[in-house]
Amino acid sequence: MVKIGILGVGTVGASVARILQENADIIEARAGKKIVVKSGVVKDLSKDRGVSIKLSDDPNDVIDDPEIDIVIELMGGVDEAYTLVKKALEQKKAVVTANKALLAYHRYELQELAGDIPFMYEASTAGGIPIIGALRSGLSANHINAIQGIMNGTCNYMLTKMIHEGADYQEILKEAQDLGYAEADPTFDVGGFDASHKLLILASIAYGLDAKPEDILIEGIENITPTDVAFAKDFEYAIKLLGIAKKVGNKVELRVHPTMIPQESMLAKVDGVMNAVMVNGDCVGETMYYGPGAGGNATASAVIADIVDIVRGNSGPMLGYKKPLESGLTLLPKEEIRSHYYLRMSVDDKKGVLAEVTRLFSELDISIEAMMQKPDIDKDACVELLFVIHECEEKTIQQAIVELEKLDVIHGKVGMIRIEQ
Amino acid sequence: MVKIGILGVGTVGASVARILQENADIIEARAGKKIVVKSGVVKDLSKDRGVSIKLSDDPNDVIDDPEIDIVIELMGGVDEAYTLVKKALEQKKAVVTANKALLAYHRYELQELAGDIPFMYEASTAGGIPIIGALRSGLSANHINAIQGIMNGTCNYMLTKMIHEGADYQEILKEAQDLGYAEADPTFDVGGFDASHKLLILASIAYGLDAKPEDILIEGIENITPTDVAFAKDFEYAIKLLGIAKKVGNKVELRVHPTMIPQESMLAKVDGVMNAVMVNGDCVGETMYYGPGAGGNATASAVIADIVDIVRGNSGPMLGYKKPLESGLTLLPKEEIRSHYYLRMSVDDKKGVLAEVTRLFSELDISIEAMMQKPDIDKDACVELLFVIHECEEKTIQQAIVELEKLDVIHGKVGMIRIEQ
Repeated sequence: MVKIGILGVGTVGASVARILQENADIIEARAGKKIVVKSGVVKDLSKDRGVSIKLSDDPNDVIDDPEIDIVIELMGGVDEAYTLVKKALEQKKAVVTANKALLAYHRYELQELAGDIPFMYEASTAGGIPIIGALRSGLSANHINAIQGIMNGTCNYMLTKMIHEGADYQEILKEAQDLGYAEADPTFDVGGFDASHKLLILASIAYGLDAKPEDILIEGIENITPTDVAFAKDFEYAIKLLGIAKKVGNKVELRVHPTMIPQESMLAKVDGVMNAVMVNGDCVGETMYYGPGAGGNATASAVIADIVDIVRGNSGPMLGYKKPLESGLTLLPKEEIRSHYYLRMSVDDKKGVLAEVTRLFSELDISIEAMMQKPDIDKDACVELLFVIHECEEKTIQQAIVELEKLDVIHGKVGMIRIEQ
Repeated sequence: MVKIGILGVGTVGASVARILQENADIIEARAGKKIVVKSGVVKDLSKDRGVSIKLSDDPNDVIDDPEIDIVIELMGGVDEAYTLVKKALEQKKAVVTANKALLAYHRYELQELAGDIPFMYEASTAGGIPIIGALRSGLSANHINAIQGIMNGTCNYMLTKMIHEGADYQEILKEAQDLGYAEADPTFDVGGFDASHKLLILASIAYGLDAKPEDILIEGIENITPTDVAFAKDFEYAIKLLGIAKKVGNKVELRVHPTMIPQESMLAKVDGVMNAVMVNGDCVGETMYYGPGAGGNATASAVIADIVDIVRGNSGPMLGYKKPLESGLTLLPKEEIRSHYYLRMSVDDKKGVLAEVTRLFSELDISIEAMMQKPDIDKDACVELLFVIHECEEKTIQQAIVELEKLDVIHGKVGMIRIEQ
């Protein structure tokens, strides 16, 4: 029999405890041993968790319990979780975590601390989808060319509604909050930060690359307008918040931002709260992993899969390698990332404006792939100019935006969405 | 260092040897040890394989070599492969195979023979997609409600062309043969037999169910007509050759057949030679795994993933469990499978025919969901009647077809395609 303790018995923790009981037979058949939750830790003991496990409000009751073999960390947050997980590893207890923030900041220290002690984190990225397993094991023969993932259900739900139903950003945010898909302060989700944590985890397995959220390009979906949505539909694009990791020579670019992708691509077809991660490997080609990115039971499915693998003795090295993966690979500075771009700007509806804008592009060596003009429904005497820009460097487009916004004929902010073909 | 020997150095075997050399650095970093192909076995030594490994035409040169730790079986076929794999296991050598036919007939004997010796077969099902790993590990917490897979690239390529380009079956078969997607004798692919082998493998992992291809419902795509394709488009269905495993109470139904599925489902969007497997688990909900189902490099990616897992010591029990999974689960007899159906029949274009057909349905307690009539472009004085039939048992619809074909007013065969919502 294997005994586990759960730090943090919220929605996911309660699901883990319940499923380990309800599906005990098949889980034991697959793991080869009975798995039992011995105890759990919560902050507030007075709240009913709907599970019949022994609860304590002192994490040490789990960590110091010599009978507990595996510690499941589901409390979230970075600092306290790190301290507790570290203590658990020092006591030679295996660790399973769903904590993406912990890993976004401490995965390399944790790998070092864990050594040969099993440390698993399937639930940290894309919920119930076994993408960590796919990258660590299923694709181990491959140099990873690229990863593109829809890894935030809140954003995907909102973008799906905006595209398919023409919903407005504020209106759909309110709806997502009412449905419990978005937090009262939605910044962590809609700002792309949640997705960036997951991207960093995947990039570590794929490339062995160390980076923190602060090091990479992160943009949210807050500035997408109905004009952008209409443009995307006209040009047969979907708009998705993607986490992208791409190897370019001996550099790796990492970025999270709303992205126009062709409607016929598989990722474009992933709608609502679902998640999906596309992985392109040099041997296998293009593969995709699709499923629910959140929810108590789906996340618990991933947590228990890790527990079963640990019990089987199948955990393997934490990040999937025992020595550095590809030496010489470094993070591409974000200003050097190259992309195609869509730009939107509201301009005075008068002669010479287009000439002024295109002259500015020309001075910056920016090449226009397409241009169209639309009436500005919000501003009288204005039109919206929409451009598709040929591939150029991030720093060039950012400079263009700064200079465009200085022009008198341009009103308000210039909107920009990156395009991936 | 781990040494491997390859039985059968064809396209996949040569890819395995080449990738193990070309990607040696990352594979060693991930596996923790250097992996080297010591020798290979081929039937015809005079043929150039484009690889620089020692070749022999005697399988015993690999199987009896005490230096070889892992035997890779890529020769295909059932009997000889079984004999050789058995010998390898008797010599305590780990085995990796891509041989779906071997597993469709001998997986339970092999599990017994292997015991604690690693036996892996990721490449046997859906090529480069790590679906075996997902089912054995990533979804181990789940009772599997259903599996639906597009697991034959030849059929999916042909059906995609038939749906999107209106191509005729014979014409597109010829094209698929010219492109090398279909064999000179295409029966194994277009008849659904290849997909049935893969389905049986997945069903063993999901349900622990023993069945042979002969035991299950298998139908191919040979009888799909342009009328069927037009109907599917009108009613917003795609037609896919699906392998379906579904738990209904304590029975499991297993079947392979062309299936009408809603165009908006993720599986409907899997086009061309690509494969995808949808797995519905009781905790995780719906997940899907997408990628190339064939090709030397994609299949080699899966073979090498297995080798890496064995070297890591992460192989686990062959079918994913150490004792029976769900006791009491048995195969649902194929005549008891329930489905919705589409029926097509060419009838005399005269009064009273529809009444005759509907009376027959009524006598068999078959309930009609929709009916439409189309001109029969092949037969003068005939029309085609198309029906959508409410859920009923397979034996009822088969009886209806037999009796319909006896009616004088009906000409030729009655076409039938099952519908999944």
